[in-house]
Amino acid sequence: METMILASGSPRRRELLTHCRIPFRIIPPNINESISGNETAIDAVRRISEAKVEEIIKIFKNESPRWVLSADTIVNLNGNIIGKPVSVEDAEKTLNLLSGRVHKVISGISLLREKGEEPDTRFVETEVKFKEMSKEEIRYYLGTGEWSGVAGGYRIQGSGGFFIEWIKGSFSNVMGLPLETFYGMLRDSNYILE
Amino acid sequence: METMILASGSPRRRELLTHCRIPFRIIPPNINESISGNETAIDAVRRISEAKVEEIIKIFKNESPRWVLSADTIVNLNGNIIGKPVSVEDAEKTLNLLSGRVHKVISGISLLREKGEEPDTRFVETEVKFKEMSKEEIRYYLGTGEWSGVAGGYRIQGSGGFFIEWIKGSFSNVMGLPLETFYGMLRDSNYILE
Repeated sequence: METMILASGSPRRRELLTHCRIPFRIIPPNINESISGNETAIDAVRRISEAKVEEIIKIFKNESPRWVLSADTIVNLNGNIIGKPVSVEDAEKTLNLLSGRVHKVISGISLLREKGEEPDTRFVETEVKFKEMSKEEIRYYLGTGEWSGVAGGYRIQGSGGFFIEWIKGSFSNVMGLPLETFYGMLRDSNYILE
Repeated sequence: METMILASGSPRRRELLTHCRIPFRIIPPNINESISGNETAIDAVRRISEAKVEEIIKIFKNESPRWVLSADTIVNLNGNIIGKPVSVEDAEKTLNLLSGRVHKVISGISLLREKGEEPDTRFVETEVKFKEMSKEEIRYYLGTGEWSGVAGGYRIQGSGGFFIEWIKGSFSNVMGLPLETFYGMLRDSNYILE
């Protein structure tokens, strides 16, 4: 199989890709992930995911990178976009918002087959229901440190899973890389899985 | 936190428990997991999960183990119980059955606080929709070897995720340890999470 370039620093994306036995190397792009107030969720994840691909192309300068994979994930609660908490206080506020409610996890995922082509970008949405969290539960969860560096301030496959009543849709999307959609992109780009 | 005894050889259960930062040691019980024809799914997972706890108590003989955690997971397709494939041919048959259909993943999870008490056993059901798999896709998936040692012959967090259209319910249940239910059991048993 051809080696991919994973344009992401996310340990969850790395973990999923490793489980799928796809050879890859990691180049975390250094881009501004802030979201402007009048962007829709889909616009935001598309813009950020494709900016990550662009950044890799810039890093490679005169070389022509192939198979650049990136993604961006946000949380949408009743139309409000929730990104990565910037502090423990911000994470606390986020968990209070998510507690007892259904939110949507939205990812944009981009795959560039080779420089010069357009990246293929697709979108995936998963509904996630949080149980009602008590003050003590929120305090416990903040103490695990899992809130850091992740959209919505929780990780589904860690202690965050304690507080998730159900999900509807792609579970890997909630981890940051929707595998079923990624697979369709691989197939449509003629990437050969062996 | 008190150390648990994980009565399971499953790497996925180990992974989830590690992510939750619960200290544990592993003692895989050696029990017969075969299911009799006239057992319901719930009866089967209860019997096997509790038998794993019993086996640990036997291993400890005169000692009194505390916090023994076990689980058993099966796949139910239209009322037919599907366990772990016994061969690659069996796995192929299983994937052909799951292809394009919705099945249920059912776990029984048992927690014994201390010897002499009854284990607390609970049940969790998640719906999983497989996409229609072509012959080539089934052949590719069998080649990954993921089918081995797992109910239903697939792993959701590996290449198996390529073929899962959606899930409804607990995602960690599909990995073998439903975290939200486990959390309720910890709380009701007064296990202290720190």
